[in-house]
Amino acid sequence: MPFLPTPRLLSQLTNRAIIYSQNGDPSKVLTSLRYPELPPPASETVNIKFLLAPINPADINVVEGVYPSKPTEETSLTTSGKGSPEQPVFVGGNEGLARVTAIGNGVGDLKLDDWVVMTKPQSGTWCTSRNVHASDIIKVPWRHGLSQVHAATMTVNPPTAYNMLRDFTSLKEGDWIVQNGANSAVGQAVIQIAASKGLKTLNFVRNRDNIRNLVDDLQSLGATKVLTYDELSDKSLRTRLKEWTGERSISLGLNCVGGNETSLMARLLGNDAHLVSYGAMSKQPLSLPTSLFIFKNITSHGFWQTRWYQNRSPKEKYDVMKILVDLMVTGKLKEPRHEILYIAAHESDTEAGQKIKDAIRNMSEGQHGKKVLLRLESLE
Amino acid sequence: MPFLPTPRLLSQLTNRAIIYSQNGDPSKVLTSLRYPELPPPASETVNIKFLLAPINPADINVVEGVYPSKPTEETSLTTSGKGSPEQPVFVGGNEGLARVTAIGNGVGDLKLDDWVVMTKPQSGTWCTSRNVHASDIIKVPWRHGLSQVHAATMTVNPPTAYNMLRDFTSLKEGDWIVQNGANSAVGQAVIQIAASKGLKTLNFVRNRDNIRNLVDDLQSLGATKVLTYDELSDKSLRTRLKEWTGERSISLGLNCVGGNETSLMARLLGNDAHLVSYGAMSKQPLSLPTSLFIFKNITSHGFWQTRWYQNRSPKEKYDVMKILVDLMVTGKLKEPRHEILYIAAHESDTEAGQKIKDAIRNMSEGQHGKKVLLRLESLE
Repeated sequence: MPFLPTPRLLSQLTNRAIIYSQNGDPSKVLTSLRYPELPPPASETVNIKFLLAPINPADINVVEGVYPSKPTEETSLTTSGKGSPEQPVFVGGNEGLARVTAIGNGVGDLKLDDWVVMTKPQSGTWCTSRNVHASDIIKVPWRHGLSQVHAATMTVNPPTAYNMLRDFTSLKEGDWIVQNGANSAVGQAVIQIAASKGLKTLNFVRNRDNIRNLVDDLQSLGATKVLTYDELSDKSLRTRLKEWTGERSISLGLNCVGGNETSLMARLLGNDAHLVSYGAMSKQPLSLPTSLFIFKNITSHGFWQTRWYQNRSPKEKYDVMKILVDLMVTGKLKEPRHEILYIAAHESDTEAGQKIKDAIRNMSEGQHGKKVLLRLESLE
Repeated sequence: MPFLPTPRLLSQLTNRAIIYSQNGDPSKVLTSLRYPELPPPASETVNIKFLLAPINPADINVVEGVYPSKPTEETSLTTSGKGSPEQPVFVGGNEGLARVTAIGNGVGDLKLDDWVVMTKPQSGTWCTSRNVHASDIIKVPWRHGLSQVHAATMTVNPPTAYNMLRDFTSLKEGDWIVQNGANSAVGQAVIQIAASKGLKTLNFVRNRDNIRNLVDDLQSLGATKVLTYDELSDKSLRTRLKEWTGERSISLGLNCVGGNETSLMARLLGNDAHLVSYGAMSKQPLSLPTSLFIFKNITSHGFWQTRWYQNRSPKEKYDVMKILVDLMVTGKLKEPRHEILYIAAHESDTEAGQKIKDAIRNMSEGQHGKKVLLRLESLE
């Protein structure tokens, strides 16, 4: 294990990271690594300590090596005894909430104990402490009324929902949008953000035994209508839809499913509508009759929050975050359903690694329905 | 046959139209109708006499009733003895070249013998004379060097090609575009217009016995590369493509085929590229991996020249026509391959109807490869 630190007393190794040195099945390649306290931050960098970091489905794809975003090789651990250059170390995790513990020269806007989140993709958030460039993080605008869970999950799903509702077509109060995968974390954010703007949502979900509960849940978040994919094939749907919408045409569709459900959903869109895809849970391609493009002038786009962060100015990022934080603290955008995976400082690397692997296996088996948030305890 | 004119001497029935009174198989529903000279034009209208009108594939779909554009019920024939209101009459044809034969009050820009073409969809061009609103036609900017075939075919295919090359992404000299159905009338216009702008074209066509001849033909029009769909599955294509393009990414794809050929072609597009569909010759849907939308930020659009005419100002229409006429008279945009279907004034309605039906049957059997242009002789 060449990336293990040179022998030190365990009590000196106050930090922990969940790392991998090659892509593959997370249950094989992920391990826990302990490392000592960070040196003081260089100029224009800060040291931060993670409070809570989600294990998002895309994070697993990154570990597997099947996601377009690649992590950069870990360098901040080098100083703490990382192994040879032939054995790179990557820290898992893309999203997370941290607090500022030390500030380098030339960092203007931050102070100790500020909450920060990541705007650089694949920052490696599954660790206790790390050193980051000040330009790769953004300060959480205010904390009053904001939970750690809110803050730790605010940089991927909520802005995906918010930006998709804003960037593709101009919607006004009373307008309808349609989405599938409505029970996903993004789907739930769409429902709530749309409701906060006075937009009506037509939501499609998979049928299931406890469908009535799910419908109730989503309606309690503000969903206007919740239907199953089965109902998409129902001839009466168009008639009912016209009654609901007063024949107002639907100009935005959001898709994280693909396949036939999406082909059918696209037919509900009106002339000049935009279909925006941000996922492909069915693993089926997006297949649409060409006539929808030619004669109805539907445009099909993709949305990827990672690209959004790459293309937007710090001010744009901060402005969206302020809007989202405001929705959160006013109760309009609730915490995602979640559970905390807690790993105590005294647990061995073997125990810690096993906990992570078990959690990821549970997630991969699907139907989990809750976001898993990692809280790594560090020795103070 | 309630739409027959009240009995007159055949010699008084100087005009002829190819009409239908209900949708259906063109070989069943199309008939020839003769009608007398038009009365003088009302104000803001002109009388025109058609010189040449294409039978486009979409015209057949309109007769069948399976095209989104519907013709308006014929009124200008009413004055010449059309039948009862229960039996509407529609004149076939969407595109055509006519000359001005009489001008009503309040028509500013036209004079006798001007050449005009239609900007109103489904104007009913398969006739000798008709009365039209001055706002539904546009004057051909100049005639010197322009053939009747050029002018009769300039309002659908060439502007489709021109606008698709202009409206979706900004292309500069040396940039590459990719298209399928490259041997279609639009595809050939794309090759020529692209070449006139210094753009490189990667063209896909169906394989066939005489493929070498087709490749030569398209290259003589200015095609940079001509390949068959079979080569899309060839692993070496990407390597060859990189050599050809110098790794410059392709930011525009034009599709009139759909199906798997288009899925494969879309993979050749670069980040942020636009795929524009204007046809679906394979009758298969457009099926793309969602990852192309999300991670490569491909946008999929449709283009329909009919909508373009509906949404654009007269000046925009005229400006595009001027550019196209200039390309035509300078030899950069050639006449489409064509044949003339001539129907003489002395031929009976039965004979005329049969000629039309035969021509459409030939077209439907496909592989025709030539545009059929209808020239209806009228008694002077």
